[in-house]
Amino acid sequence: METSANGSSPEARFDFDRDTAVNPTGDGLYEGLVTDRWQGLGGLVNGGYLLALSVNALLDVVPHPDPLVVSGTFLRPGATGPTKISTQLVRAGRRLSTAEAALVQNDKEVVRTIATFAEVGGEGRTVMFGAPPELPPPDECVDPMGSVSLPGLTIADRVEFRLRAAPGWMSGTPTNNPVYDFWLRFKDGRPPDTTSLVLLVDSAAPAILELGEMTSTTVELTTHIRGRPAPGWLACRHQTRFVSAGYHEEDSEIWDSQGNLVAQARQLALLP
Amino acid sequence: METSANGSSPEARFDFDRDTAVNPTGDGLYEGLVTDRWQGLGGLVNGGYLLALSVNALLDVVPHPDPLVVSGTFLRPGATGPTKISTQLVRAGRRLSTAEAALVQNDKEVVRTIATFAEVGGEGRTVMFGAPPELPPPDECVDPMGSVSLPGLTIADRVEFRLRAAPGWMSGTPTNNPVYDFWLRFKDGRPPDTTSLVLLVDSAAPAILELGEMTSTTVELTTHIRGRPAPGWLACRHQTRFVSAGYHEEDSEIWDSQGNLVAQARQLALLP
Repeated sequence: METSANGSSPEARFDFDRDTAVNPTGDGLYEGLVTDRWQGLGGLVNGGYLLALSVNALLDVVPHPDPLVVSGTFLRPGATGPTKISTQLVRAGRRLSTAEAALVQNDKEVVRTIATFAEVGGEGRTVMFGAPPELPPPDECVDPMGSVSLPGLTIADRVEFRLRAAPGWMSGTPTNNPVYDFWLRFKDGRPPDTTSLVLLVDSAAPAILELGEMTSTTVELTTHIRGRPAPGWLACRHQTRFVSAGYHEEDSEIWDSQGNLVAQARQLALLP
Repeated sequence: METSANGSSPEARFDFDRDTAVNPTGDGLYEGLVTDRWQGLGGLVNGGYLLALSVNALLDVVPHPDPLVVSGTFLRPGATGPTKISTQLVRAGRRLSTAEAALVQNDKEVVRTIATFAEVGGEGRTVMFGAPPELPPPDECVDPMGSVSLPGLTIADRVEFRLRAAPGWMSGTPTNNPVYDFWLRFKDGRPPDTTSLVLLVDSAAPAILELGEMTSTTVELTTHIRGRPAPGWLACRHQTRFVSAGYHEEDSEIWDSQGNLVAQARQLALLP
């Protein structure tokens, strides 16, 4: 049985682990496979998926168990098929370690990632000036994918969402209010962890769709992992506040089933 | 006369340009000098200053004139004295280019920066769901440095601030509300531009001081440059919403004198 650096394998129980498994080939190089199972609107390979692949390689070169900050710069669209990931350990300290990855496909770099790792969820001061989104329980919410089929959107077969009501853009009536609150979890029951949050923060449709836009290209995505998520549904908020000269931020917060903030992400993206 | 890659020089008219000048020494390497003029509380070299030095080196290797996204990972405290900056052009495209810098002092890497460059301030859709902070005109505001002297805080000799009222922490009575709105500009009259915003987003005291903390260490800082700032005072907001197990985000927004958002920044920092 082929076993990856992080104990994942093609026979892994859950889609996320199977599809983000990487294998070391020496000298800090890793091989992985970008599957067709994590595609967003238009069949584009999800950026968070590419970052999770990169983080899995980096977890093999750093002494800490959890991503703490992951900054990915997207250079080209990803493609399904094999990928090579080269890694560099930048610094390994007692509390934090930093490493960098270049994810390469067809000899071209697709995403450059710099990430700092730690043991997340220790002791320390905790003060919250914000709260999880107020949502009805998941079983009283709407499954937005219940009655539609969006071509190429395979990520929606792996991650499920629940909202108070189906988003406006899905019925061709964007709300002009680029904020969503929703529940989210892996469909196959995989419990969330710090690594999978790197994908999950980027797994839902961008809030910019509520401004009538059809797509948006991520330039850079930074995720802060704030806690070790408890099992169960995750409560999320996606929001865009500023579109300036075609560029916009896309903010994402994820709270676990215990009401703890577990991830905070921001990307800069570009309208076509 | 010694002239840097970006036309700055030791004889530059303004402090910022003189102190962030870098000189190419070949093979993508640059030399600069970390002066003692941009230090924060406790005499620590300001992180935004180190990023501005790095960005000045990167501007010499990319074909675009403005930083668009700058992500810096802080590995060790900076020190006054010489620095070497090694650069790598990651990708040069028509609209965007990406490059990376390692800022090294005493043979140890202090900050790793990955940045994407563009021509900022072009045409494109603009929609704002937020507004600049509401502040009285600068001359009706308080200069927080007017009656205090904080040891080591040399950055306050280069950047001046105006607030509605002096921050609570300065008089030993933190407000327990980690939000500041304030005006900011270079003291010597240097007009703001896209590169200097990389320093300015990090130039004011962190909002976390209003929670009674005395200091905080930045792990990572990402800045999005959203526009080319008009001359004059800049209106700013610093805010922390979540402190979890000793980690907190520090958000910074800067608006120019025309009321346009010109920078949005977020850092992850660690309480001692």
